[in-house]
Amino acid sequence: MHTLVIRNVRPMGGEATSVMIREGRIAGYGQEVEGGAETLDGGGAIMIPGLVEAHTHMDKTLLGMGWYRNEVGPRLIDKIENERMQRRVLGIDPARQSARQAVLAASLGTTHIRTHVDVDTEVGVAGIEGVLETRERYRDMIDIELVAFPQSGMLIRPGTVELMDRALQLGAQVVGGLDPAAIDRDPKGHLDAVFGLAERHGVPVDIHLHEPAELGAFSMELIIERTKALGLQGKVTISHAFCLGMADQDYVAALIDALAEARIHILTTAPASRPAPAVKRLVEAGIVVAAGTDGVRDTWGPYNNPDMLERAVLVGLRNNLRRDDEVALALDTCTHGGARMMGLDDYGLNTGDRADLVLVEGETLADAVVSRRPRRMVLKGGKVIARDGVALFEAP
Amino acid sequence: MHTLVIRNVRPMGGEATSVMIREGRIAGYGQEVEGGAETLDGGGAIMIPGLVEAHTHMDKTLLGMGWYRNEVGPRLIDKIENERMQRRVLGIDPARQSARQAVLAASLGTTHIRTHVDVDTEVGVAGIEGVLETRERYRDMIDIELVAFPQSGMLIRPGTVELMDRALQLGAQVVGGLDPAAIDRDPKGHLDAVFGLAERHGVPVDIHLHEPAELGAFSMELIIERTKALGLQGKVTISHAFCLGMADQDYVAALIDALAEARIHILTTAPASRPAPAVKRLVEAGIVVAAGTDGVRDTWGPYNNPDMLERAVLVGLRNNLRRDDEVALALDTCTHGGARMMGLDDYGLNTGDRADLVLVEGETLADAVVSRRPRRMVLKGGKVIARDGVALFEAP
Ligand SMILES: [Zn+2]
Ligand SMILES: [Zn+2]
Repeated sequence: MHTLVIRNVRPMGGEATSVMIREGRIAGYGQEVEGGAETLDGGGAIMIPGLVEAHTHMDKTLLGMGWYRNEVGPRLIDKIENERMQRRVLGIDPARQSARQAVLAASLGTTHIRTHVDVDTEVGVAGIEGVLETRERYRDMIDIELVAFPQSGMLIRPGTVELMDRALQLGAQVVGGLDPAAIDRDPKGHLDAVFGLAERHGVPVDIHLHEPAELGAFSMELIIERTKALGLQGKVTISHAFCLGMADQDYVAALIDALAEARIHILTTAPASRPAPAVKRLVEAGIVVAAGTDGVRDTWGPYNNPDMLERAVLVGLRNNLRRDDEVALALDTCTHGGARMMGLDDYGLNTGDRADLVLVEGETLADAVVSRRPRRMVLKGGKVIARDGVALFEAP
Repeated sequence: MHTLVIRNVRPMGGEATSVMIREGRIAGYGQEVEGGAETLDGGGAIMIPGLVEAHTHMDKTLLGMGWYRNEVGPRLIDKIENERMQRRVLGIDPARQSARQAVLAASLGTTHIRTHVDVDTEVGVAGIEGVLETRERYRDMIDIELVAFPQSGMLIRPGTVELMDRALQLGAQVVGGLDPAAIDRDPKGHLDAVFGLAERHGVPVDIHLHEPAELGAFSMELIIERTKALGLQGKVTISHAFCLGMADQDYVAALIDALAEARIHILTTAPASRPAPAVKRLVEAGIVVAAGTDGVRDTWGPYNNPDMLERAVLVGLRNNLRRDDEVALALDTCTHGGARMMGLDDYGLNTGDRADLVLVEGETLADAVVSRRPRRMVLKGGKVIARDGVALFEAP
């Protein structure tokens, strides 16, 4: 039985110890090293559980494709239409592009990804097939969960529901949705379709909700009703949820209570330019809050990169989390929050948990987050998959 | 006469050319290289003018002092009082700390800094003296402009105005101010003192204005009135100006018009967690908008680092600037905006301008900004002062 011991690591920035790994799991801390064990030097680095990228779009990143000059219009629909057009013009191959992002993300310590993959009447399920190929190819490096995502709407494009159904048959694990009022112009119809798919396939739900203020809140209410009616508590995520940043604080308070009761999770990218959910307040209300990058270098915008420590910084900046305990909370959205949202079993640093681990230098945990140094070591299932910021797997 | 030629650079991401530098200034582009000229290889890097850090606090960064565990309370006054206390407890030496930040900033391509230096009845002008020492010591590496800054208030701490006067005699070049209503509880008295100092010393003004919404707008009106009464158009900066992000859009529109008419500059850090000035709108109204980091790793918060390309990204994220031309605008707040705010002569990439230059890799200008690679070369007054992200000057 192969045993790996990493000496001199500091779990969550605490005291230095050694961690023993056996059969892909954490077997204990500070134990005597047996004769046959392989040992590695952690160099005093801080050890955290694998970073969780809980919302991205790997099928359409432009990583490695040359700079895309963004001249797109200001409306949401401009960006959606431009993207469909550029997919043809630029030749964005979902398998290749998702592989590039997977390898980059792994080099940065991400061990789990939830990715929303476009399903529409133009691309069909080709995106799903491409990302499934990447999921399989890199299964020893990273876990990838696919959301079938109707980016261009569902009811306004007849045939999309059937394609979503096909995507879930092929292996997508989550059913997605998008702005039920703003895009499909039919919140009831859109959500009935989404939840219908969820019921039929027995899968969780993750809905993009950019709708602002009271409009978004109405869509949120419809989501809460369906979650409870179908017994999907703990299985539904609302991504973005900008409406939770609206001015009407009584309305927000009531929504937070209702979300907590229905055990609906909230995913945030911590956008600086939009009203956004208040992370600390949601966590205090018992809601699982996860964080994600959204699109990485794509036709939507140039800034994002998949470093989840950078995302933790952005969560901290957006939510004015300055104290060390607050920085730890920001990091938590990029680790345990995402893990709980995705229902990951055996995630964490406890004995028995899967050995998905990141070693990163830092004087303290907060220092490790804000300094975002190259990851010294990344382990997936107990195996080293990246060292000093470089993944040991090749990208296409 | 010494001539330096850097071959194969791309000014602002344009066509590759060579730049000739003579007597510390740009002598031209694409010229024949003379026999005696020293030549360097730009390697196809993008060349931009030196980055301008238009608002920071070099006297109180904790760089190199070990991690400071932040457990401070939530109010502004908690942070101000905690900082005064920690200054004693931690032994924050303004000369040493400002030198550390200066060298780090230079390594990142910053060639000009405006720094607000605490003046109060406890520290007196010791901070000013320390930063003046750094200014002198690193004069060939970076230009540092000092603002005498009454961080703890002016009227509520008798003796502060006299110390401000002394700071300006010693060599501080700008008079600062701070939340005339919220801190000194006397907006008229505070601003009369600030503008009185400006008149007596013939120096520009730069006022921290965190006051929210209508309260901040009222203080802003008082600043505008005094700017016009004293003929200080073009010499006054309002830093932060959160009130320009308030909900009352008619009020904001009127303020923008009045600011433009009085030629008052706006400095933003692009805070993600506060209402903030809309950069593009101000620029379109003809207002000079500069960007700054504010405190770097200090008792106020852990996130900031003095990379002005990262600041450009944060300006872009905060203001939803996604298109390539918009990313260029975000960068402009960290270059020309700061230079105009500080009244720098001969700043830029034109022939005759001072050769304060940054070479950084990137496929396009926007790529250089969002990727923030180590600066390949930084020149100050025509001399290389940093290479590959490392300054050629030593920090204490
Ligand atoms: Zn998304
Ligand atoms: Zn400041």
